[in-house]
Amino acid sequence: MSSETNPSAVVIASEDLRAWTRSLVQRAGTPPDFAADVAEVLVASDLRGIASHGVARLAQYLKLVNAGVLDPAARPVKEKSKPALARFNANNGWGQPAGRIATDDAIERANELGAAISVVRSSNHYGIAGWYAMRIAQRGLIGISLTNAGAMVAPTRSRVRMLGTNPIAVAAPAGRFGMVVLDMATSTVPRGKIEIAARQGKHIPEGWAIDREGSPTQTPEAALSGALLPLGGAEETGGYKGYGLALIVEMLTGVLASATCGHHIMGLFSTEGNSDLGHFFMAVDPGAIEEEDSFEKRLETLIEELSAAPRAVNAPGPVLYPGQLEAERAEYQAVHGIALEQSVFESLQGLADRYSEPLPSIKR
Amino acid sequence: MSSETNPSAVVIASEDLRAWTRSLVQRAGTPPDFAADVAEVLVASDLRGIASHGVARLAQYLKLVNAGVLDPAARPVKEKSKPALARFNANNGWGQPAGRIATDDAIERANELGAAISVVRSSNHYGIAGWYAMRIAQRGLIGISLTNAGAMVAPTRSRVRMLGTNPIAVAAPAGRFGMVVLDMATSTVPRGKIEIAARQGKHIPEGWAIDREGSPTQTPEAALSGALLPLGGAEETGGYKGYGLALIVEMLTGVLASATCGHHIMGLFSTEGNSDLGHFFMAVDPGAIEEEDSFEKRLETLIEELSAAPRAVNAPGPVLYPGQLEAERAEYQAVHGIALEQSVFESLQGLADRYSEPLPSIKR
Repeated sequence: MSSETNPSAVVIASEDLRAWTRSLVQRAGTPPDFAADVAEVLVASDLRGIASHGVARLAQYLKLVNAGVLDPAARPVKEKSKPALARFNANNGWGQPAGRIATDDAIERANELGAAISVVRSSNHYGIAGWYAMRIAQRGLIGISLTNAGAMVAPTRSRVRMLGTNPIAVAAPAGRFGMVVLDMATSTVPRGKIEIAARQGKHIPEGWAIDREGSPTQTPEAALSGALLPLGGAEETGGYKGYGLALIVEMLTGVLASATCGHHIMGLFSTEGNSDLGHFFMAVDPGAIEEEDSFEKRLETLIEELSAAPRAVNAPGPVLYPGQLEAERAEYQAVHGIALEQSVFESLQGLADRYSEPLPSIKR
Repeated sequence: MSSETNPSAVVIASEDLRAWTRSLVQRAGTPPDFAADVAEVLVASDLRGIASHGVARLAQYLKLVNAGVLDPAARPVKEKSKPALARFNANNGWGQPAGRIATDDAIERANELGAAISVVRSSNHYGIAGWYAMRIAQRGLIGISLTNAGAMVAPTRSRVRMLGTNPIAVAAPAGRFGMVVLDMATSTVPRGKIEIAARQGKHIPEGWAIDREGSPTQTPEAALSGALLPLGGAEETGGYKGYGLALIVEMLTGVLASATCGHHIMGLFSTEGNSDLGHFFMAVDPGAIEEEDSFEKRLETLIEELSAAPRAVNAPGPVLYPGQLEAERAEYQAVHGIALEQSVFESLQGLADRYSEPLPSIKR
């Protein structure tokens, strides 16, 4: 839910970082409208403090373009549809514009019908799942966004990686609280958290991962060569539920969209073939069954009550609602600039040189 | 995922138990068609080995009827709708027929549109969430069923019960595997598992519950006077994700359907007022975007691969798919009869006497 700011971080104004990212992605052969999508989604992630899914991914994305396994100019097309369910083919192009187009199509149909779904196949990494759900919530609807991903997670009782961290994102307008935004991997933690523990020489809690044999481990190195555990951890603490959720996400994305599934999906860092990811987007319009804004007011009341719930004795802070910390971080960084880790900044400098697109000025 | 059979259990043929339940519920003032729904859903739960949601609930259900807080003859009506989203009012009647009617309405619209949702308000306990999802999957569609429930679960960082165990059920046809059926509470465990540990004098694992102060506890008695933890357990093992899921279920049921929400919901065992529960049902037709059966074949392949995944060294058995054990149990008990705990059997005897509806013969 949180993320620490490194004191040696480099700070860049969000609008500058967005404009630079757009230009860079354009130089790699992307049409201007699609480059704007990629920049928008990546910088939104950095703004919210989710550095792992922000501009840190640019170098990798552009490697896929250069290897010819991501077609930067490909336009997604609607292949098949009924009024409330449509399938798009991203034609192996950027995940972000494919996701934005499929999302907007679902919003338009939901405004008419009360609810609508788009699925996408032959896509690539689409950034934070929450961005598409938030886009829907910004229009007053309930938004859901799901995607499959390269295999990282072992099913309960197995020792091998068979499913991705398959995230679930749901967003809805919540009155004075802005939006509720749940954006969660269905694994206990992302792999990145274990990598950080490894660098810091720290143990990891039980329930995060297993080693190559499938035994629970608290040693980050053993975990990194093993597999992530699904949400819930071990079987006795409900890990089979997290496994079940990851499977359902796979079913609604890869299986429903006719994309690649499970352990057949290429890792994000592989340039050996197409990703062929599947995404799922749903918009639900509460206004279809009631007076405008009354859903939003009831959700506001619920969040108010949860936020005011008496704290546990050792609580590290107040009771939060999903997306609260990320929204606070985004608000702060929109004013004060985005803090980038030194290593991320260096990777951007490399791209700036290679594509002759000089980086914007640094605020700090 | 599993359930043990007590050797002192009483065994009754499922068709006999279903017929008796239907007659009993009719004697309490329920129209025949609705009595059949209640019997069908309860006995389906017993067949699947989920005794907590089966005929063991009858005594409590009939107390609600007798107290005048559940109207056994009330018929649900569709109040408001657009083609893909409809809201029903159960008029404070049985949850099972309201759920069945809303589910069938969603199936019919999904066959036309590709996907459709029904929500229900002013309802009562509807049994296992999975029954409605399975009804949809039996017709070749993907089914989702959600409900809110009396508050049992503490949000992360809180010490009080603010949300129900708010289950998520998803089912889909899976070729030779029959159906995939995920039917999970969004808490780590149901309260019943802690009650069993208390009776057996055993400790419970960390991650299941907290005491009245909000501290993690392994003592069942302390847990029973405290609160359940959401899936994931403590904050560092992802408990905030389970809390987020419970909140999303609340949002799509209580909030979206204009029913009662969160800690305002009466406990299932309270006769002091109406339950006013909210349910959500969704049907998605893969046939809308592809050739018939191809979704089912791809899901079959995925399940095949997951089932064949190499086992962890200490795995207690094979890798399972969601609903596998329950389907095996149902198949067995459909032939050999349903095993009822002695205490459940005694409660049925009491009802048989009170309503002059003699119990069927015992198989063992």
